[in-house]
Amino acid sequence: MSTNQHAWGGRFSQSPAAALDAINKSIAFDLRLWPHDIAGSLAHARGLRRIGVIDAAALEAIERGLAAVETELRDGTFEVRSEDEDVHMAVERRLTELVGDPGRRLHTGRSRNDQVATDVRLFVRSACDDVDARLRTLCVALADAAATHAAAPLPAYTHLQRGMPTTLGHHLLAYFEMFDRDRERVAQCRARANVSPLGSGACVGSSFPLDRAGVASDLGFAAITRNSLDAVSDRDFVADFLFAASMVATHLSRLGEELVLWSTSEFGFVELGDSVTTGSSMMPNKKNPDGAELMRGKAGRVFGDLVGFLATLKGLPLTYNKDMQEDKEPLFDAFDTIVLGLDMAVANIEGARFRTDRMRAACSAWVNATDLCESLVRAGEPLRTAHHQTGRLVRLAVERGVEIEALPLEVVQEQAPMATAAMLEALALQSILDIKTVAGGTAPASVAVAAAAARERATAAR
Amino acid sequence: MSTNQHAWGGRFSQSPAAALDAINKSIAFDLRLWPHDIAGSLAHARGLRRIGVIDAAALEAIERGLAAVETELRDGTFEVRSEDEDVHMAVERRLTELVGDPGRRLHTGRSRNDQVATDVRLFVRSACDDVDARLRTLCVALADAAATHAAAPLPAYTHLQRGMPTTLGHHLLAYFEMFDRDRERVAQCRARANVSPLGSGACVGSSFPLDRAGVASDLGFAAITRNSLDAVSDRDFVADFLFAASMVATHLSRLGEELVLWSTSEFGFVELGDSVTTGSSMMPNKKNPDGAELMRGKAGRVFGDLVGFLATLKGLPLTYNKDMQEDKEPLFDAFDTIVLGLDMAVANIEGARFRTDRMRAACSAWVNATDLCESLVRAGEPLRTAHHQTGRLVRLAVERGVEIEALPLEVVQEQAPMATAAMLEALALQSILDIKTVAGGTAPASVAVAAAAARERATAAR
Amino acid sequence: MSTNQHAWGGRFSQSPAAALDAINKSIAFDLRLWPHDIAGSLAHARGLRRIGVIDAAALEAIERGLAAVETELRDGTFEVRSEDEDVHMAVERRLTELVGDPGRRLHTGRSRNDQVATDVRLFVRSACDDVDARLRTLCVALADAAATHAAAPLPAYTHLQRGMPTTLGHHLLAYFEMFDRDRERVAQCRARANVSPLGSGACVGSSFPLDRAGVASDLGFAAITRNSLDAVSDRDFVADFLFAASMVATHLSRLGEELVLWSTSEFGFVELGDSVTTGSSMMPNKKNPDGAELMRGKAGRVFGDLVGFLATLKGLPLTYNKDMQEDKEPLFDAFDTIVLGLDMAVANIEGARFRTDRMRAACSAWVNATDLCESLVRAGEPLRTAHHQTGRLVRLAVERGVEIEALPLEVVQEQAPMATAAMLEALALQSILDIKTVAGGTAPASVAVAAAAARERATAAR
Amino acid sequence: MSTNQHAWGGRFSQSPAAALDAINKSIAFDLRLWPHDIAGSLAHARGLRRIGVIDAAALEAIERGLAAVETELRDGTFEVRSEDEDVHMAVERRLTELVGDPGRRLHTGRSRNDQVATDVRLFVRSACDDVDARLRTLCVALADAAATHAAAPLPAYTHLQRGMPTTLGHHLLAYFEMFDRDRERVAQCRARANVSPLGSGACVGSSFPLDRAGVASDLGFAAITRNSLDAVSDRDFVADFLFAASMVATHLSRLGEELVLWSTSEFGFVELGDSVTTGSSMMPNKKNPDGAELMRGKAGRVFGDLVGFLATLKGLPLTYNKDMQEDKEPLFDAFDTIVLGLDMAVANIEGARFRTDRMRAACSAWVNATDLCESLVRAGEPLRTAHHQTGRLVRLAVERGVEIEALPLEVVQEQAPMATAAMLEALALQSILDIKTVAGGTAPASVAVAAAAARERATAAR
Repeated sequence: MSTNQHAWGGRFSQSPAAALDAINKSIAFDLRLWPHDIAGSLAHARGLRRIGVIDAAALEAIERGLAAVETELRDGTFEVRSEDEDVHMAVERRLTELVGDPGRRLHTGRSRNDQVATDVRLFVRSACDDVDARLRTLCVALADAAATHAAAPLPAYTHLQRGMPTTLGHHLLAYFEMFDRDRERVAQCRARANVSPLGSGACVGSSFPLDRAGVASDLGFAAITRNSLDAVSDRDFVADFLFAASMVATHLSRLGEELVLWSTSEFGFVELGDSVTTGSSMMPNKKNPDGAELMRGKAGRVFGDLVGFLATLKGLPLTYNKDMQEDKEPLFDAFDTIVLGLDMAVANIEGARFRTDRMRAACSAWVNATDLCESLVRAGEPLRTAHHQTGRLVRLAVERGVEIEALPLEVVQEQAPMATAAMLEALALQSILDIKTVAGGTAPASVAVAAAAARERATAAR
Repeated sequence: MSTNQHAWGGRFSQSPAAALDAINKSIAFDLRLWPHDIAGSLAHARGLRRIGVIDAAALEAIERGLAAVETELRDGTFEVRSEDEDVHMAVERRLTELVGDPGRRLHTGRSRNDQVATDVRLFVRSACDDVDARLRTLCVALADAAATHAAAPLPAYTHLQRGMPTTLGHHLLAYFEMFDRDRERVAQCRARANVSPLGSGACVGSSFPLDRAGVASDLGFAAITRNSLDAVSDRDFVADFLFAASMVATHLSRLGEELVLWSTSEFGFVELGDSVTTGSSMMPNKKNPDGAELMRGKAGRVFGDLVGFLATLKGLPLTYNKDMQEDKEPLFDAFDTIVLGLDMAVANIEGARFRTDRMRAACSAWVNATDLCESLVRAGEPLRTAHHQTGRLVRLAVERGVEIEALPLEVVQEQAPMATAAMLEALALQSILDIKTVAGGTAPASVAVAAAAARERATAAR
Repeated sequence: MSTNQHAWGGRFSQSPAAALDAINKSIAFDLRLWPHDIAGSLAHARGLRRIGVIDAAALEAIERGLAAVETELRDGTFEVRSEDEDVHMAVERRLTELVGDPGRRLHTGRSRNDQVATDVRLFVRSACDDVDARLRTLCVALADAAATHAAAPLPAYTHLQRGMPTTLGHHLLAYFEMFDRDRERVAQCRARANVSPLGSGACVGSSFPLDRAGVASDLGFAAITRNSLDAVSDRDFVADFLFAASMVATHLSRLGEELVLWSTSEFGFVELGDSVTTGSSMMPNKKNPDGAELMRGKAGRVFGDLVGFLATLKGLPLTYNKDMQEDKEPLFDAFDTIVLGLDMAVANIEGARFRTDRMRAACSAWVNATDLCESLVRAGEPLRTAHHQTGRLVRLAVERGVEIEALPLEVVQEQAPMATAAMLEALALQSILDIKTVAGGTAPASVAVAAAAARERATAAR
Repeated sequence: MSTNQHAWGGRFSQSPAAALDAINKSIAFDLRLWPHDIAGSLAHARGLRRIGVIDAAALEAIERGLAAVETELRDGTFEVRSEDEDVHMAVERRLTELVGDPGRRLHTGRSRNDQVATDVRLFVRSACDDVDARLRTLCVALADAAATHAAAPLPAYTHLQRGMPTTLGHHLLAYFEMFDRDRERVAQCRARANVSPLGSGACVGSSFPLDRAGVASDLGFAAITRNSLDAVSDRDFVADFLFAASMVATHLSRLGEELVLWSTSEFGFVELGDSVTTGSSMMPNKKNPDGAELMRGKAGRVFGDLVGFLATLKGLPLTYNKDMQEDKEPLFDAFDTIVLGLDMAVANIEGARFRTDRMRAACSAWVNATDLCESLVRAGEPLRTAHHQTGRLVRLAVERGVEIEALPLEVVQEQAPMATAAMLEALALQSILDIKTVAGGTAPASVAVAAAAARERATAAR
């Protein structure tokens, strides 16, 4: 009666158009979910057994069959057939080929709607773990480099203009903070994903007394979803991941930008290893920071994954709509992209040869003006008055092409009557670094402590 | 010497171009931050007093002056001057007009960089509280409506095709789940924002021994930032808010879409109140669900706020860059937009007249096919076999223009040999609803319990 | 001396890290450019011959070699090697294996920077042609369906509420207009892409007197780029394509939404063919408009491709930066996505069985109120007065559950004193359709003319 | 009978909720459209007169009344009332207050749907003209600066590494090309917007024989829309503008990035005027390139405007939906943003003091390696061989800390046997600039010609 070969073909008299197959089939990208699909099916089958919907022999056959399918998938010998729409159908089809009738019983009390939601949640959970591991590695690399360079002077820039001196260690720890925040975001994303929708069926639950909690527990889920309609139409956890990934990508882009800047001839603050740079097909002189550039440039695609998926979700009525199939490609792409980026960041940081000599030399250009200003305040001058006085001194120094402390004291005092020789002496680089002992500040001793604390945080058991 | 009237004008010989003022000044939109700016300045001044940087008289003058400035701002009598670049400079300028010298001491140990970061964090914290309050109100409205309609049958749709019966209460609770998740996201955003950057100065901390912890505590912050460079260049918490807002907006858009659909002549599942609909300037017959449409349509701008801001952050080197001034407008816009949307959602839900008669009537079109299929499975048929059999029965029923249970038993048994009369009887709407007692399922009794639990969650102390 | 096997490895002492290869190599996705790469290399080689940089034998070897490489690529026998970073290096490497020394001369006067810009421009040009062909096919399908249904009544909706009657043909032609505008946008994109950058070298041009115009002409380019720095750093034409694709995707999403709505049980305006719908793995009764849903849902990813790429381009200094390698994946993805969507749209339109009976039946609910209002205006009533009068009549009709023309004349005249029996007669569906003869209006005769004109536009030689 | 005061209130028994007014009213932002609204109403009224729908006296009253309203709006004396939903209703309300009955006739044959579409199209057309004027001004500034610096050596960077020498003029002309392309995009956007929808009514046209072509011509439109349903639901031209603006913003961001880089202490290629830079509230030494940073940072919001609006349009069924009201704020924001950015770019370029001495000094670091390589090719060496040889020479030079031409000839010849003393001499900066005479290349003489041609293009009549 039906010529439609699909598992759902009973009510259909015609097969899908080639154009439908082309736009509809997801096997090309979702096959990657197979470890989660098999885990989910195993847990589901065991749950069916516990409530007596399948017998022990059927369960045994399903377990045996799924093990065989898993082996084929792992070994790359699994053959995808033209009628396999997606990973779920492919696995079930193969299972049934291998074990017959029990395979046809596996999908009892289940729909692809709750099945795919389960698989994607398992993927996100696992992706969060992978990303967290890499974030830790990067955090350790940053903390270690910061410890090494806790006291190495470096200009802190605002507006990419030299502002006040800091240390390389303090600078690296700023990145540590960013990636450490990412770890929190990833952990919260993981927690929101780690809830089992299995047992929600196509949308309204099931007429079988499914052991949802038991199945969830088997799969390591922390809880089960509360509402079946929501369970099959909820992809918020994918958006959560895409946002967490976007923040990681943002931070990678900022670090990438600085590595690109620092490795220019003009800054010359770092020499990147040959292992993270490439040459030119035309210009034999080139050594290009490709890795750092891609850390920066690839942020765009992750943002695109996020906003594109939000646009897809927008305005979807309940419950499952096919539009939601568009969850997987941005998810995979964002995950793969930040994994590449994090690996590249580690390789860059670990291989970087920081030119602390050039950094120290760059701590010029009146970067101690603020310290003079604050000395005047300590002497009693109101801040705004001292700021204007110091500003005028900087102009004088600029015009004379010298640093402030090289101006004759009497010239200084003309602009800033409360200035003293001691104040000018206190403008020495080491002094102005050491005085910044305020919490979170840039004093080398504080930075060393902060680097040690950071390392501890990055390596602590989660 | 200098003709530049700005507070930072000391080193400058020329005033800004009109074009610079136009692109650079933020007072037009950041004046809104004044309550936070004044609170931050008060706490900072008290901190300066505690460490002896200003004397008691100066503090008293600053407190008195800020109180006066606050009154002017609250009453709308504050005059913005052409030289006021931003809210910070405007408040300090006015303070100094009012109290003289102590005003010039307020900015000691502080930079606009840590000041604005503080103000924006306080704004985000307050915005999270406002949004959470509205989410609660909406959650209560949904839970109440769900309690009322826990047992009212409604088709559950997948692909906007009728799938299986659910109840209106279950459907409304699906939205409850979405907005409840939003509350968690907002709370996590709040926690990440609720950390004090004050004392980080322009970027490297301060040469004054600022009491950062005390000031933070005064302002209700839960902690202080750990790294001064990060503290002034971190706007991740703004992105956090924009993402949380994007998810709220996504959920509002889904609810809006359904209200639009349900209020069509074709669905007719709801009559929206006159108070949330409008008419046409041309067509006297129209009653348009404008509020619901805007709940849907305004999601776009919130996504735009998010991705636009991510693009702005991308690739920024440390520390503060002027680009970051672009944080405020998307933040304000996203906040205002979801506040409008949440209020509109509450008005729509509270004013909706649900047409449960039409919903019940729509529970036709073979929405019980899955239940027949599962009965066959319970009788021993493998799921896939039962699915095919039922699919063929649906085709027969479609051709005859009847529901499945209206097919003669012998016709049914031709396709599904295990079918029985009892099975067909069990296809009655109430039966198939009642049997879905699985956790999270659609059985009316379960829905009533879920609605009560939901209400409790929404009203629990946070 | 060097252990780096890359073509640019001369100055390097170390090989790339695995992490660099993983993030940096583009061969996995850019191999698809091979037809353009080979065409570009052939034209370049012939240009080198014309200016005497290579001799006839070298050219002949290159031509022979590239033909062989092309065959391998076309037949799928081409072997990608681990050192092949990208399609350009892979083709050149294989060419050199096949023909030796002349292969090593091919890259003279060329850089990957102008080479890849050329390849991508050729791809965009070809993609524009492919998209235009599909847009034409869809436009023809829409025009044909519009011609068939030029006179079939259908409510025109605003706010998804029935507004005034139109015809199905007029409705379909609205989509024609959208896709016709897309054709213009695609043509303008094509024109901007169709300019040759070859000869711009790495960034500053070349010390060889390259015959840029001749090479461009060989490749069918309409012009050559004017500035070498711009030529290698310009990817605006990719953004142009992504935007044109976004508009196509927007239009597909709107059409998809309507097909989803129209195929609901509630609207019932269309029956989609089995060939563009699918079933459910759980619910045997389902027939889901997957194709139409994906036309709608896939718009998100195209928007993501666009904005992600804009974010990548943002703030890039001149000239080529590695970030630009991120142009290809969004370009390919957007192209593939709209090709799938356009094919699916054609399949949906061609296979749709429009239920004109149900459409006609839906032309109720006071959709002629505006016509009564305009009759009153013709009788001398000011528009605003007539609008209020008709509005009140609609309320009366709603309360009585009848159409306006079913209200007793005296009741009508109580509200609208100028109303006449003839006016009520003129409210018949056919009359109010026929009277809309204004240009672009909905009168069936006008629609028939418009459909014919549309078909002509879609099939005209470009 | 009705307590609803709105013009469309006839069928309503209740007034809008405050929440609806808050989300629904657009007067706060669309009042800005008043010049277009009045122009459109005038043309519409004259059209009504031509077809005899209003008499001469009514037209005269409307003309007089609109002139008075215009004066109030221009002078800022127009009072917005609480019941004014939008600019259209506000103008009509005031007109009717001023002239009575004729005001109530103005909206005949028109709907807000075609009215607002007309206003927005007029705004876009005018915005395109404003943007084009500014693009021209910027193009002229770039061409002039390029002419001045046609011969000033500057390293061309790829990957932000010095590549090969170019000139400052050539570099500035690369930006000219970008903004020149923007002018084409803006012109195409203008043409697509410049089509009149007036006469399309609410959606199906009108029962009045409106003189659409005449009205369009009065308003300067080039054509009329072809399909009334499309005309009221089409906002593609807004998306066109947002995309054109996004490209302008992208180009501004690239230029801004370079100005930021170039004005660092490290590059030192430019000194920006005091009029486009600002100081710090804390650090007296700072001179920050705020204008350039905002040129860069503001690109994000324009991208957000674009993608947010695309998301809003996605999946909207025909015809007008309230979601479309979300067109105006992104449109206004994008327009205002790029106007600010373009003005700032002009101020930056015109006020820039280029440090050509430092640029010339930076033309070191083996930027002539490619030229040596090409000399070897001219001597007969295959390119790939010559490239490897030169790469090894660069490594030697790096190790010795000298430029290539400073290596002893015999050392050079060890690596590159075909090298000659003449080749090393030809590596002088001026020589390698002058030889790049290929079309679009960097030879100073070519750049001078290109600058003149560019200026001509920018000032040509459009």
